[in-house]
Amino acid sequence: MDSVLQGFLNRLETLDSGRMYGGDFFLTWEKTRDELDAVFAVADALRRLRALNRSARLFDSGLGVSLFRDNSTRTRFSFASACNLLGLAAQDLDEGKSQIAHGETVRETANMISFMAEVIGIRDDMYIGRGNRYMHDVADAVAQGFRDGVLEQKPTLVNLQCDIDHPTQCMADLLHIMHEMGGAEALRGKKIAMTWAYSPSYGKPLSVPQGVIGLMTRFGMDVVLAHPEGYGVMPQVEAVARQNAQESGGRFRVVHSMAEAFEGADIVYPKSWAPFEAMEKRTDLYGRGDLDGIRALEKELLQQNAQHQDWCCTEALMRTTHNAKALYLHCLPADISGVSCENGEVEASVFDRYRLPLYREAGYKPYIIAAMILLAKRPNAAATLRALYDREAPRCWGI
Amino acid sequence: MDSVLQGFLNRLETLDSGRMYGGDFFLTWEKTRDELDAVFAVADALRRLRALNRSARLFDSGLGVSLFRDNSTRTRFSFASACNLLGLAAQDLDEGKSQIAHGETVRETANMISFMAEVIGIRDDMYIGRGNRYMHDVADAVAQGFRDGVLEQKPTLVNLQCDIDHPTQCMADLLHIMHEMGGAEALRGKKIAMTWAYSPSYGKPLSVPQGVIGLMTRFGMDVVLAHPEGYGVMPQVEAVARQNAQESGGRFRVVHSMAEAFEGADIVYPKSWAPFEAMEKRTDLYGRGDLDGIRALEKELLQQNAQHQDWCCTEALMRTTHNAKALYLHCLPADISGVSCENGEVEASVFDRYRLPLYREAGYKPYIIAAMILLAKRPNAAATLRALYDREAPRCWGI
Amino acid sequence: MDSVLQGFLNRLETLDSGRMYGGDFFLTWEKTRDELDAVFAVADALRRLRALNRSARLFDSGLGVSLFRDNSTRTRFSFASACNLLGLAAQDLDEGKSQIAHGETVRETANMISFMAEVIGIRDDMYIGRGNRYMHDVADAVAQGFRDGVLEQKPTLVNLQCDIDHPTQCMADLLHIMHEMGGAEALRGKKIAMTWAYSPSYGKPLSVPQGVIGLMTRFGMDVVLAHPEGYGVMPQVEAVARQNAQESGGRFRVVHSMAEAFEGADIVYPKSWAPFEAMEKRTDLYGRGDLDGIRALEKELLQQNAQHQDWCCTEALMRTTHNAKALYLHCLPADISGVSCENGEVEASVFDRYRLPLYREAGYKPYIIAAMILLAKRPNAAATLRALYDREAPRCWGI
Repeated sequence: MDSVLQGFLNRLETLDSGRMYGGDFFLTWEKTRDELDAVFAVADALRRLRALNRSARLFDSGLGVSLFRDNSTRTRFSFASACNLLGLAAQDLDEGKSQIAHGETVRETANMISFMAEVIGIRDDMYIGRGNRYMHDVADAVAQGFRDGVLEQKPTLVNLQCDIDHPTQCMADLLHIMHEMGGAEALRGKKIAMTWAYSPSYGKPLSVPQGVIGLMTRFGMDVVLAHPEGYGVMPQVEAVARQNAQESGGRFRVVHSMAEAFEGADIVYPKSWAPFEAMEKRTDLYGRGDLDGIRALEKELLQQNAQHQDWCCTEALMRTTHNAKALYLHCLPADISGVSCENGEVEASVFDRYRLPLYREAGYKPYIIAAMILLAKRPNAAATLRALYDREAPRCWGI
Repeated sequence: MDSVLQGFLNRLETLDSGRMYGGDFFLTWEKTRDELDAVFAVADALRRLRALNRSARLFDSGLGVSLFRDNSTRTRFSFASACNLLGLAAQDLDEGKSQIAHGETVRETANMISFMAEVIGIRDDMYIGRGNRYMHDVADAVAQGFRDGVLEQKPTLVNLQCDIDHPTQCMADLLHIMHEMGGAEALRGKKIAMTWAYSPSYGKPLSVPQGVIGLMTRFGMDVVLAHPEGYGVMPQVEAVARQNAQESGGRFRVVHSMAEAFEGADIVYPKSWAPFEAMEKRTDLYGRGDLDGIRALEKELLQQNAQHQDWCCTEALMRTTHNAKALYLHCLPADISGVSCENGEVEASVFDRYRLPLYREAGYKPYIIAAMILLAKRPNAAATLRALYDREAPRCWGI
Repeated sequence: MDSVLQGFLNRLETLDSGRMYGGDFFLTWEKTRDELDAVFAVADALRRLRALNRSARLFDSGLGVSLFRDNSTRTRFSFASACNLLGLAAQDLDEGKSQIAHGETVRETANMISFMAEVIGIRDDMYIGRGNRYMHDVADAVAQGFRDGVLEQKPTLVNLQCDIDHPTQCMADLLHIMHEMGGAEALRGKKIAMTWAYSPSYGKPLSVPQGVIGLMTRFGMDVVLAHPEGYGVMPQVEAVARQNAQESGGRFRVVHSMAEAFEGADIVYPKSWAPFEAMEKRTDLYGRGDLDGIRALEKELLQQNAQHQDWCCTEALMRTTHNAKALYLHCLPADISGVSCENGEVEASVFDRYRLPLYREAGYKPYIIAAMILLAKRPNAAATLRALYDREAPRCWGI
């Protein structure tokens, strides 16, 4: 047995993740620390298995269904890669090509696509109060279908980004931090600045900042959420972060100064988002079909944004971080000043210096998704991974 | 050997299905009863194999090509699931992304996409006299390509819905009925009401009612086709149904009263469709590019439909069926009164009561498609299925 | 061991193709003759392996990513077939559904889609000076990503058609010629006429004529490029052809008469293309967003084309070829007079007579692509193919 893999499996065996079997993955704060740690351990084990050229093909057949309600490159490819690694065929539910417009119910569609589906991955992040609820509707429908004998297996739902959380992204971010800093224990007391940053574009989702404050506070970190006045996130997620910090021995604060957030930070995550209140207003306007209202809101928000162009991750700010070398994070693509826009979230020289770590950060996402699937599909993940190793089937064959 | 699977294989061995090897599947009435029964037996066997967690992966590589000329969710996913179950990669021929507009011939395109294709599934149901003919053109082209040595295997064509028949749907419907009622023999003499129902939408295809009367009359059933005056289906399919009924010892009638059709029925299938004559007229108008004519026809048809809003599957009508509990069928999605439209094909309470059977009905479709493929690809389906069982390759691996 | 396969492997073992391992495939003239011959030998071996019903599944998991910047049927299906044959899941990067418009860099996108990608196939042939450069940008990005440890494997780039060359097409053409004429040695001294032909459509790419003169001159052939004055191809590719001919003991000429080119030819390849200078001008106009200029250019080019309607592959011209039966080639789809257009590249009776060879020609493309992938992925292709044969895993299973 490979000793690195053995290490991950040993760790996995100490964790209580049995309740993930048959379950879904919506929000990180609905999972126990053991369950989150199990995802990390399985992700690392699958990555090691692939590095050892061992097949992780858990399924001989089965579909991995995806539904993207917003454009997507990296999440789409991450999901397809995760499914493929486990032996599932990715099948996209393109609502434009479907009959869903005929007025059928979520319950019906969910069952109709799931006769041979092992996982359903959904990205639906645009409307407050909608995305996560929709995912629950789908998951409830297929769980009911499975209980009723309509489906021969229960597809697991993986949240690929909703209005509340972006668990696959934030867990990839965290796995990256752990690999850079030396494990979960090393994160205790580390300061992470999740800060708003200026972008010329409009209406970026809240799921990343919310996901970050909801997850990092579980690990005893000193989490600072920074944004201009009026750019708050969902109050209920702030409450979750506060509670998490208390329980984990960490800290959670909201400040209105990027400088204050960066000061001495070990990790910085500067990223644009739209104010929660504006997103709520927009959701209502869409609901009422008020296109004039939407246009007026967009104009207003862009004007509001433009007053905060100084919220940029500059070299000067980076120098104020811990030893002047905080780890810079981003979910990508970033708005880079002078590259993708005139003034953006980050100075080009900062971004360039962190390009490789950023790409590695993104590279964990397929494994995080695959780990979520495996833990929902097999009652004993450690034994399954050991058996996959012992099977000695090569991923790439030949000489 | 699993005894349930053994039962399906024993049955299969009594059937003469050898001529399906190397063939295609266009219309159910072009097949012998033995051949239809073989499809049911293979579908049941594949479903059992999957329930036993045995791999049905017949192919190590190969494509399953689909061409959808109309929006589709459930047929798209059924075809993808069937291909995946047998080890084929689903590859959609999206005409919008292809060069077909350049004016190349069907013969050429069919060969160009088929170098590694094992099956081609086509849905082309919108224009009378076109869909089925197009499928034959494609099948002839690849059969010729195979004979000429251009193709290394002959892809089998599976009709995923044409202007004449919808064999994968109707055979899934029938397999469902057999499972609900206790086998093919139990259907003898049972009354099935295939009736028109009101829908606010326009131009629904004729393939389901035609497929149902063409198939159910093979099984000695008392088949009643009901519709308002002027909503007739293709005369040649009615002739087929009449002939079938005579040969099977069943019955076939056309009536113009939903009440008469429901009276004492064991099975009801209330569903909207467009009058055959109107569909023919529309096909001509499209052919001439007469958009004004199409708009006028649509208006006229919607007005005509609106006069028949009383053709709805109500609780009151359901009470008149055999023991007040006829099996309600639908190919989905249904137009449900008060749910997907104000007045539709069925009352919500009726639909809700039959939701589970309806979903199960849909669940047979992937297996029906997979069975059609397998029977066209292997000369000895029973021996192949037995060998797949004996191979003991798990569909889902691990612990 | 099958003796036909043995023959291909014996040939392969005499060739020095080791430098293809870990490499990419951009232009045929960047490869040695041994490397080109290795592609042919591996393509033939893979084809034989499939004919023997042996699995060529090299990969247990992994993605084959495609990016088509122009409509495509046959190349899309060829690439999907090649990936599938080797065990890779085809995943299309549809730029319309992606976030690339946000302004992210090629470097970033290339890495983000490649975490589990083994091959990236790109078609980008519309703009002079762009397509090939873009492919290099992508290949450089993932090579750097691999060196930096961002990617766990280096995806190989396969040029599925650029502004300069169309290597998978032209190598399929050449493998076809070799099979028709009795091997590479038999081509020495054979006259091939790559000639412009009239088409009513506008702006067809230059990659095929350029690819043909760049490749066929490697094999000691007498290559004649014929076109009306003003329809020249890239001067640098003509220079390559001239140099190749000198080195291989062949010949390369440009003439402005279709009759002269056909006279005594063993092979003819009549096909429309846009003048290089016009394509360059169009690229500039697009770059400046000058839509009026583009429309004016299009009008001008169609008028210019219309003066050369006599450039058609007629029966009369075919009678002037060697023994009146030159092998007629086309990359398809062809513009056929009286079929797909009034006046086109070829008379219908000529095209019809060569339909089967043309389809066979196209059938080599999936194998050429698969061979390019295999040679980039395995250091010892011959040993790998032998091992695949010895593995005795059937491609199609059952009885």
